[in-house]
Formats: sequence, C-alpha cells, structure tokens
Amino acid sequence: MNNFVIKNAKYVVTVDSQNKVLSNATIVIEDGKISAINPTSAPNYEVFDASNHLIAPGLINTHTHLAMTLLRGWAEGVNLDGFLERVWAAEGAIMDGETSALGTELGAGEALLSGTTTTLDMYLNPAQTHKAAVQVGLRHIAGPIFFDFPGLDGLEWQERIAFGEKWPVIHQEIGGPFTPLFYMPHSVYTDSEEHLTEVATLAKKHGARVHLHVSETLAENNQSQAMHKRTPTEVLRDTGILDVPTTYGHGVHLSDSDIDISIKAGASVGHCPGSNLKLGSGIADLKKYQDLGLVTGLGTDGCSSSNDLDMWSVMRMAAHMVALKHSPADVDLVRIVRAATIDGAKAVGLSDRIGSIEIGKEADLIAIDLSALHLTPIHNVLALLVFAAGRSDVSDVWVAGKRVVNSKELVNVDVKDLKNRIDERMKALEDLK
Amino acid sequence: MNNFVIKNAKYVVTVDSQNKVLSNATIVIEDGKISAINPTSAPNYEVFDASNHLIAPGLINTHTHLAMTLLRGWAEGVNLDGFLERVWAAEGAIMDGETSALGTELGAGEALLSGTTTTLDMYLNPAQTHKAAVQVGLRHIAGPIFFDFPGLDGLEWQERIAFGEKWPVIHQEIGGPFTPLFYMPHSVYTDSEEHLTEVATLAKKHGARVHLHVSETLAENNQSQAMHKRTPTEVLRDTGILDVPTTYGHGVHLSDSDIDISIKAGASVGHCPGSNLKLGSGIADLKKYQDLGLVTGLGTDGCSSSNDLDMWSVMRMAAHMVALKHSPADVDLVRIVRAATIDGAKAVGLSDRIGSIEIGKEADLIAIDLSALHLTPIHNVLALLVFAAGRSDVSDVWVAGKRVVNSKELVNVDVKDLKNRIDERMKALEDLK
Repeated sequence: MNNFVIKNAKYVVTVDSQNKVLSNATIVIEDGKISAINPTSAPNYEVFDASNHLIAPGLINTHTHLAMTLLRGWAEGVNLDGFLERVWAAEGAIMDGETSALGTELGAGEALLSGTTTTLDMYLNPAQTHKAAVQVGLRHIAGPIFFDFPGLDGLEWQERIAFGEKWPVIHQEIGGPFTPLFYMPHSVYTDSEEHLTEVATLAKKHGARVHLHVSETLAENNQSQAMHKRTPTEVLRDTGILDVPTTYGHGVHLSDSDIDISIKAGASVGHCPGSNLKLGSGIADLKKYQDLGLVTGLGTDGCSSSNDLDMWSVMRMAAHMVALKHSPADVDLVRIVRAATIDGAKAVGLSDRIGSIEIGKEADLIAIDLSALHLTPIHNVLALLVFAAGRSDVSDVWVAGKRVVNSKELVNVDVKDLKNRIDERMKALEDLK
Repeated sequence: MNNFVIKNAKYVVTVDSQNKVLSNATIVIEDGKISAINPTSAPNYEVFDASNHLIAPGLINTHTHLAMTLLRGWAEGVNLDGFLERVWAAEGAIMDGETSALGTELGAGEALLSGTTTTLDMYLNPAQTHKAAVQVGLRHIAGPIFFDFPGLDGLEWQERIAFGEKWPVIHQEIGGPFTPLFYMPHSVYTDSEEHLTEVATLAKKHGARVHLHVSETLAENNQSQAMHKRTPTEVLRDTGILDVPTTYGHGVHLSDSDIDISIKAGASVGHCPGSNLKLGSGIADLKKYQDLGLVTGLGTDGCSSSNDLDMWSVMRMAAHMVALKHSPADVDLVRIVRAATIDGAKAVGLSDRIGSIEIGKEADLIAIDLSALHLTPIHNVLALLVFAAGRSDVSDVWVAGKRVVNSKELVNVDVKDLKNRIDERMKALEDLK
C-alpha cells in the first residue's frame, strides 16, 4: 500500500521553491506519494517517529558506474592512462553480464545505505545491471552503451543499435520505480560523429534522454579539437545529440560558449568533484554553472576512481571547491543541497516526481538520525547536511514510499550472501594483482 | 591491568619502518603496551576477536580547538574576517572555564568515536579542558595560551606567565595518558616579539614544546612582513621559540627558506586541508614538505571551521590536494597514512610511545569493522583507509591499552547527559543567532 506517516520530524529539509526547513513536522505518504505536509489531522497509517531525525529528499547521484564498485581500490596512485590500463584489464577479466549485475547489486546497496535513492548509472550489460539494482530497491537509471569498437560486451555497432531499439520494452519489463529512458554513448572520443547521429535519431524516436562523458579532461577537449575541430559540446550539438535532453558526466572543462550551447539545449551536468580531484581532471566551476543557469547535479563517478559512493563526501568537496575557485563567502549551502537533490532530479529528467519534499512528489526520502555526537549541537541545519552529516547517519530510506533501508539495514538484500558471492568472484582477479 | 590479546586480526596496518601490513595477526598488550606481535603462543588474557577487523594505530589530530565543537555550523559562508567576528561573539558569550570543558568533553568524545586517540588542542582554560578530555579517555595535549591582550579568559600577561609556571604541576596532577608539556602562544600576530621570547624562555625552563598558528594565510604573512619585516617562521626563530620543538598549526604558506629553517629547528606542521579549504586559506604543499623532510601531521582545526573532527575526511582531502598541486601519481597512500599516525606522533613529540604498532609502543589502537558494503571488496588496504573507510567504521578504540570505545559506544561518557548539558548551555547563544 505504501501508506505511512512520518511524525514529529525534528527537521524537514524540503528543498521546495523557498527552501523551507520545517521543525516538528508531519508528512503523510499515500500510494508512495507525499499527500500532505503538516495536516491538521493525520490518517491512521503506520507511523515513523522522526522526533530525533532530519528528513530530506533522497540524494541523487547523477554520474556513476555501479558495477565498478567491484574495483574499489584497484587502481591507486596512477594518472588517467595508468588508471585506464589497470581498470580495463580487470574489467576484461571479469565483467560479463552476471558480474556486472553483482557489482551493481553491491553498488545499489551501498548507495541506498548512504542515502542515495537515485543513480544515473552508465555501464555495460544494462539489462542485467538494471534488474539487479531494481531488486535492491534503488531508483536506477540505466541505458544501452554505445561505442565504435566492440568492447567487453562484444557487441558490434549494429547489435548496439538493435539492442537500443529493444531497450524501451526491456526497460518497461524490468519495472521498478519510474525512470526515464536513457541512451548512453560513452563520449565523443569513443563514438564517431556518424554513430552519435544514429544514437540521437534513436533517442528522438523513443523520446529518450542521453547521458555521456563530456569534457572530463583537457586532453579530451584537445583531442576533440584535433579530430573534430570543435569542442565536445559542439560535436554533440552538430550530431543532434543535444536535440534531446542530455546529462554530461563530469563537464569539467566547458567554455563559455559550451555553457551557452548547453543551457539553450536543456543539457545538464553531473559534477563529480571527488573523482575529478583523484584523477587530476580539474575542477568544474559549479558556482559559474549555477550563476548562468546550467543545471548541475552531483555525482560520485565509479568506485574505481572515487572509491565509494558517498554523496556526503561529494557535497563537502563540491562546497570546498567553490571556496577554492571563488571564495568562502560564495559557498551557498542552499545551492549545494539543491545540487544533491532537486537539481540532480532536473539533470536526469525526474524533477516533476522527486528531488524535493512537496505534496504530489513521490516519497524518495531519507531519515538522518541526529543522535551522533558529530551532529551536536545544531546551529545550522544545512551546514549539518553539507559539512557534518555522513552516510553513517542515514538510518531509514524510502523509494517511492517503499522502505528499502530499515534502521541501517537493507530490506531487500541478504548482505552475507552478497559478500560471499563477491568474495568468490574476486578470485578471478588474483592473477592480475 | 590493561592486558589483552587482539586475535586473528584480518589486517594490521603497522606503520612501522617498513610499513608492513599483516594478515591474520595477533597482538599482545600488557600493561597498556604492545608486548608481542604474532607470538608462537599468546598469554591467556581477555581476547578481542578481530577476524573481521582492521587494526591500525589511533589517528593523531595535530591541530584542533576541541571546545569550539560547541560552535559547529555557527559561522557559514563567510570569509575569515566574517568568520572571526561571528565566532568571537559566540565565544565571548559562553566560553568560561566550565563551558570550555563541556565543549572539550563533546569534542573528545567525537574524536575517540571516530578513531582519533591523540589531539593537540589549543584552547582557553586548559586546566579545565584537559581534565575533561582526560576523563573521556583521550590522549589530550593541552597547554597555556598566550596573547598580548587579556582575551576571554581575562588574564593579563603576567598572569599568563604565572599560570605557565604552574602548568607543569597542574598537568601532572590531572594525569591521564602521557603527554608532553606544551606552551601555546596563539600566533605571531597576537603575541609581540618580547612576549614570544618570554614564552620561549618558559618552555626552555620546563623542557616543554610549543604549538601556535603559523602562516595560515597570506594575509598573516603580509602582516608579519609589515610589522616585523620577516616571515612568521623567521620571527619564531629570532624570538627563540624555535629553540624548542615547535608544532605549527596550518603552515600553509611557508617559503623555501621557512621550510629550511623549520627542518633545522626540528619544527613540524599540523596540516588542516579541510579547514584551509573552507576558510579559503590556501593549500599547504604536503608532498613538498614530505619530500624535503619537514615532519607533517594532519589535523581538523576546530569545528567552527571544519564542522567536525573527522580525520578520515582530512586524510582523503590531503590526498586529493596532493593530486591537485602535483599529480594523481604523486599521491602516496603510505605517506598519507603515516601523516595521520606516526608523523603526527613525531609532530607532537610522542613518536617514541605511539603512532605505530610495534613492540614497546603504548597500545593506542583502533579497530575498523570491515563489514560495511562501502569497504567491500578489499583490493588495497591503504586505499581502503584513505579513500573508503570513515568514522562510522571505527568500532573499538584503546588508549594506552584502556578501552575507551566499545562497539561504537564511549566507555567513559554518559552521552545522553552530555547532550542535555549542551542543549541547556546553548540557550545562551539564542540571542546571537
């Protein structure tokens, strides 16, 4: 039924248009949606007593590769080239459909436990990964991957297009919390202009969105200039990709003109400061993007570069990077929290359904247990969220009104069994260490 | 008695001279000290089963102001001037001896729960703060504060010197885990050269060390040039401060000559990347300091600027800042872990007693519970420590062999009572909000 009442919430960070923070508030959830906030009388549903909790919208991770959670800590102390060499060798050894699903199950579990309810997840074998993540309870956005070469999944280009044609039906059959259709060409450096145009045509035909890596590094921009005499954004415009709403993974090095093109096209950015710092990719100018109106969500990237899926650490780093590129007085906590929630929802085409706590929205909610000493005392609720709270403070999580984390335990996963399956599969990497 | 055995530790990160990581290891603790590692047979003491734990040396926070934990989130989105204005107003309203002790109790509890066993803590009312922290179980380094003006504690200069003369006896009477004697003049911008010379004389007389803020910002360096025609480090040299081992809080902007002077004098740095980023102070060049041999530990600074006392977040940011200033391939996980442990111990004059897991060292140890999904799988133990583990994974903590955290609960603190006392005291800040 997905009907319940969150009662006496110490704080509710609504992320509504006025960024209201409520105290001692009640939220009614009916059929998985928020039906009332602070009603004069609440219906007689099951009650979650939030008198020592902060309730916030679930965090939205706008760029990740969940299956790569299996490669956490696999490639350390290397530049991007050495990183890719290490990671590709490991992926080549293990990442069949079943193992992609296994890694995604792990990543989905980690995401939910840390308060992330939605992920924009780019990885091979999306039918398998999507099914695994939906079973864990995540609002999981997957989509067919496209690159010119066959890749680990062994698909030739025409097979990719054919799978893309079938994806809307597969996506619908898997079910789970609503997610938009997405197609995911990897990048302008792995997909020719002709192929990008084919993906654009496919996306338009099916009313889908596009997700791909864009201007992650200066090297990528330089290569784009050398090959196409244009920036990656310009290539996306000219191939028709930007005719559909597009989410850029990273978007670190966007020129003023790129930003302008992107805003006009309704494109958005999944900003991954932790991964960008760790791989030396540079620092996206979050404040500038926000000032100009380029919708920017936050993301972790995959665990082979970010090491975990901790959006709290990402919020903190995003704030620090604004202070570094501009000044501490330019750090706007409201903007950081919005980036992790409603702007992330906009970036993935879900802001009509999630990303804030408002009547009519689906109940993708997290409860932060306020009892930790590191959350004491509370002078500023948003500062608590951005600079002091962490994944360990998330006690309960709902996606579309379904409880998926209950008192810090996953509802839909046998964690011991999952770990055993991972241990078993990791033996295949022994020879590569 | 403080005798026990840690059995079957899945990993032990020793931080010994070879940075050995042991698997399936046993550690024997007798009289609070590590008496054997992997003995052929262990004595029949109480056993801590660490078969699903990683054992590491307790983390060492080399620059903080624990009492300011009460001002977490109090001053947000401000530059240093605005920050100081907000914080000083709040301190003026509440920070008497009793409240300083209350904040220190909170901070000491948060530190221990997050795996920090030693803090170099600069704050007013050190007799009260030190007593409070020792009762919580922390290896807490405090010392008399010196500045030219009377300050919140209302002491005139001669009273500060008189208190400094009494400090060795007070320090001894409070007892607790061994800590060196320290004197803490605030900085070269709050203490005249004459006064610094007096403190240096006092420190020499009592065989003490010195801790103070040094080159935290460029503005501080500029002011030093304007007032003294020398860098802060040069002023410390010329006033005799550097005749005793000195720990610099921050040390962000040290010239090559400053570094050279500091190394020759046996001075060290407490590097606080989180605070420095948040306040826009700049980024200390950790790799350069380490390359040149300037001993550098890590620190959080106070919670009014860092918002929490999380040394895990500091390790991660320190690593990211090395990647940013140099390159990802320059991030040496061994060096980051050493900075948080043995180098921190060196920085505060305790490396003969703590900072590594070696026979003869005191048992300042932390157990990391490896069961979290965000620690699965484990391909690289040091990467796990620096980039994936966090405060919530610390399950058990010992200081000098005494258990101070047991299954994530403080042994010596009634947390509910502590929070009630904090809530009560925070009412005094209502009018300033």
